[in-house]
Amino acid sequence: MELLLPNPANSTPLTTLGFLDRAATAYGDSPSIVYNNVSYTWLQTHCRCLQMASSLTSLGIQRGQVVSVVAPNVPSMYELQFAVPMSGAVLNNINTRLDAHTLSILLQHSESKIVFVDHHSSSLVLEAISLFPRNTRHPQLILIDDEMVSSGSKSTSSTSHFLDHYEGILEDGDPKFKWVRPKSEWDPMVLNYTSGTTSCPKGVSLSHRAIFIKTMDALVDCFPWGMAAVGGTNICLRKVDLSQIYRLIKQHKVTHMCGAPVVLNMLSNSPDLETLDHHVQILTAGAPPPAPVLARTESMGFVVSHGYGLTETGGMVVSCAWKQKWNKLPLTERARLKSRQGANTVGCTEAEVLDPKTGEPVKRDGKTVGEVVLRGGSLMLGENGWFYTGDVGVIHPDGYLEIKDRSKDIIISGGENISSPEVESVLYSHPAVNEAAVVAKPDKFWGETPCAFVSLKKNGELTQKPSEKEIIQYCRDRLPHYMVPKMVVFESELPKTSTGKVQKFILRRIAKAMS
Amino acid sequence: MELLLPNPANSTPLTTLGFLDRAATAYGDSPSIVYNNVSYTWLQTHCRCLQMASSLTSLGIQRGQVVSVVAPNVPSMYELQFAVPMSGAVLNNINTRLDAHTLSILLQHSESKIVFVDHHSSSLVLEAISLFPRNTRHPQLILIDDEMVSSGSKSTSSTSHFLDHYEGILEDGDPKFKWVRPKSEWDPMVLNYTSGTTSCPKGVSLSHRAIFIKTMDALVDCFPWGMAAVGGTNICLRKVDLSQIYRLIKQHKVTHMCGAPVVLNMLSNSPDLETLDHHVQILTAGAPPPAPVLARTESMGFVVSHGYGLTETGGMVVSCAWKQKWNKLPLTERARLKSRQGANTVGCTEAEVLDPKTGEPVKRDGKTVGEVVLRGGSLMLGENGWFYTGDVGVIHPDGYLEIKDRSKDIIISGGENISSPEVESVLYSHPAVNEAAVVAKPDKFWGETPCAFVSLKKNGELTQKPSEKEIIQYCRDRLPHYMVPKMVVFESELPKTSTGKVQKFILRRIAKAMS
Repeated sequence: MELLLPNPANSTPLTTLGFLDRAATAYGDSPSIVYNNVSYTWLQTHCRCLQMASSLTSLGIQRGQVVSVVAPNVPSMYELQFAVPMSGAVLNNINTRLDAHTLSILLQHSESKIVFVDHHSSSLVLEAISLFPRNTRHPQLILIDDEMVSSGSKSTSSTSHFLDHYEGILEDGDPKFKWVRPKSEWDPMVLNYTSGTTSCPKGVSLSHRAIFIKTMDALVDCFPWGMAAVGGTNICLRKVDLSQIYRLIKQHKVTHMCGAPVVLNMLSNSPDLETLDHHVQILTAGAPPPAPVLARTESMGFVVSHGYGLTETGGMVVSCAWKQKWNKLPLTERARLKSRQGANTVGCTEAEVLDPKTGEPVKRDGKTVGEVVLRGGSLMLGENGWFYTGDVGVIHPDGYLEIKDRSKDIIISGGENISSPEVESVLYSHPAVNEAAVVAKPDKFWGETPCAFVSLKKNGELTQKPSEKEIIQYCRDRLPHYMVPKMVVFESELPKTSTGKVQKFILRRIAKAMS
Repeated sequence: MELLLPNPANSTPLTTLGFLDRAATAYGDSPSIVYNNVSYTWLQTHCRCLQMASSLTSLGIQRGQVVSVVAPNVPSMYELQFAVPMSGAVLNNINTRLDAHTLSILLQHSESKIVFVDHHSSSLVLEAISLFPRNTRHPQLILIDDEMVSSGSKSTSSTSHFLDHYEGILEDGDPKFKWVRPKSEWDPMVLNYTSGTTSCPKGVSLSHRAIFIKTMDALVDCFPWGMAAVGGTNICLRKVDLSQIYRLIKQHKVTHMCGAPVVLNMLSNSPDLETLDHHVQILTAGAPPPAPVLARTESMGFVVSHGYGLTETGGMVVSCAWKQKWNKLPLTERARLKSRQGANTVGCTEAEVLDPKTGEPVKRDGKTVGEVVLRGGSLMLGENGWFYTGDVGVIHPDGYLEIKDRSKDIIISGGENISSPEVESVLYSHPAVNEAAVVAKPDKFWGETPCAFVSLKKNGELTQKPSEKEIIQYCRDRLPHYMVPKMVVFESELPKTSTGKVQKFILRRIAKAMS
């Protein structure tokens, strides 16, 4: 039969940005964002995002240029998820916990033209800018000062380095602005940086198409663009504050939330611990929820779901779809089942585990390990038809995937990815250090913490042997706090393969035995 | 920043077929299809669809060839939605209410290689095949005999014209069959025929991409591929049987159903009328639900939603997203709001009403009419960046679309689209008829029925003037029952425009006045 070729009416680029136009029509009066004493409707959010997109264009932002955001979960952070790509720019969300040096590298690498800076991060960003090489063009800075919004009065923060306040820039924008549609659904919409497995942060850009497919997965969950698709309400939280979380859950009848396993742990150990008066779906990823945490959180009314994804996959691509009948099983069995990462999401075409030698799928016996590979519309990279995750896993007889070795070197601490080579490079820079290797040490609170193994230079070269405390202090001066090893083990020599590579799996066993 | 080009890992074609693989893993033990005393799990449905896809391949079916289905909502009908495209073939669902002549044309036009035939439609299909021109290749026929499945015994229907029974063909298939993935997401997956506005049925093919985007919209509703995405249960019904509908809703705690307005009318007028013990979402389209019907169905526990779509758009693309606050309004006001078609769905990029002269969007005042145009990933056709629906509508100040004149000529009777030129061409073929025009006449039961206006040939040419009854009988011999005019009005001359076109809007007013 005749071929069905793309044409202008049916090949409109897939994008999630139009969801906001629709939300303004379909859910105009419904609350979109709630934060302290501020609340917006979807009509207002639509209008504010168009205004901000318009202002960005007036400031000279052009299609494909990068605009960065350094802010916690405040309303402007949500608005910028739409407003930045609506101006045609690429949205670059930056972790507020990075150090000035890393931040400076990211801002230079991304060639960011404008940086939105939360007032709590202003000194960090100013320091990062000061580290730019001479004669380098600096990005323009816009100050997010939500306390001004809440109190209605101007902030007293120094704004000499800033172009203006967020609200000032927004007010100048045209609420009738015709937002910049992508020319192709493959146009980049978001640029994220992953710490990756090498010491150099890697830029991961996701297309409008990828974000659309991801959002399809997220329609039943609580991610920014999906919320605009269903007209839900975003409750913003500047930081993890337990009593506030419990208060907001009750006050706004929160249905969905996300949290790293460490957040689950905190929720279940809270002194404010109370049974919820309704069920709350909580999605966790990064590490399986341990049985005692699962038991406590579930008894309180949280319904925990577990998923798996990477920066390169635009978020969760495998989830532990829960079966009704499993509810009847004892807790330990439920925890075991829930600790598995699960099945591919609807938007992820395939998740498989391949034998590294044959390249063929491993036996589905829950024992035979191989490399986890993925393919699907939300992925960033690929070769040979698959994206190779670097993670080692098994497939159970029921088809559910389980990650066995989270990856050769990444350490996940409190939900943050730590690249061990990045920490190692700092250790290697210490004058007394000969060899260094950093591995994950299991930790009840953080999930994992970095544990450093170092061998020191021979006596003749050293004036004095550094202590564990000195090494930790040395790292603290050069790394974000969460990346600093919590323990340093001195070895005369690190275990190595015949080809000279450090055998991290041995160090990991030692670190585990010490935890 | 650097461009993000498609690569083999992230440009896997969008398709809904993989949902079935995932459903087998994630919801394997959950019921997938329930019909009389037959029930399947998602694991079984997955296995059976792979077997049938395998058998189709063994029968010589090749990528892009058409396989047709003439069957009501029985389990095999559901399975074929996956099995046919999983063999690489294009699925062609055919209305069981067509006459043998039309059916014959569709089967020839689609060059269908295999036709799955429900045992209730076997004589119809055999007649359609007998109308094929001599020396034309006939499709192979496979008999769907679900009573055999239910009772476990072979049917006694004559199978001499049939290759085999559905179950026999399926049993020969390989449950480990590697299904045929589309080479491109633009590959056709489904071929539907619309009666359209011309007398010739128009083939509308929808790509894997279009069906994927449509299914995203349908994730919260009850359409075949979406059900596999969420692991829901399909309750099959051979026909609209009120007492059975009520029994099944209670027995299986049905959450979602679809029905033309005529079904809503029947539900609310049922002698078995009972209040449901849980809410049932019912989606209706084709005509707005009238206030009394809305009042009765809502009081019984149905939550009625209203949408708009065309064959060419792969289903609903505009829906009347309901606002909480509207629940407080009086019934007549709620009915008025719900009678509007609404806002574009998440998967539909834009729905607009354009001034036919300027091509610009009309004023959003609920009064200025224009042509309804659409664009989005699930559409079939397009020109000038828009798909022109031929329907006339307005946009209300709140952004909701309302169709004012359902289209210049389509009549929707009991949920069936009737192309007036198709009926007119039969009338024109009558020896006594000079001019003919068929328009919709409002009908409490069917929504609309076809009403014919004819002028007869002058006396000199006629031996005898035909009666209304004779004209109706003449149509009945040549058209499917539902397309036959229920009323024939004789006029000396039909009202026409200066360019000679019949002014149907005048005839519609007359028909309305007579109803």
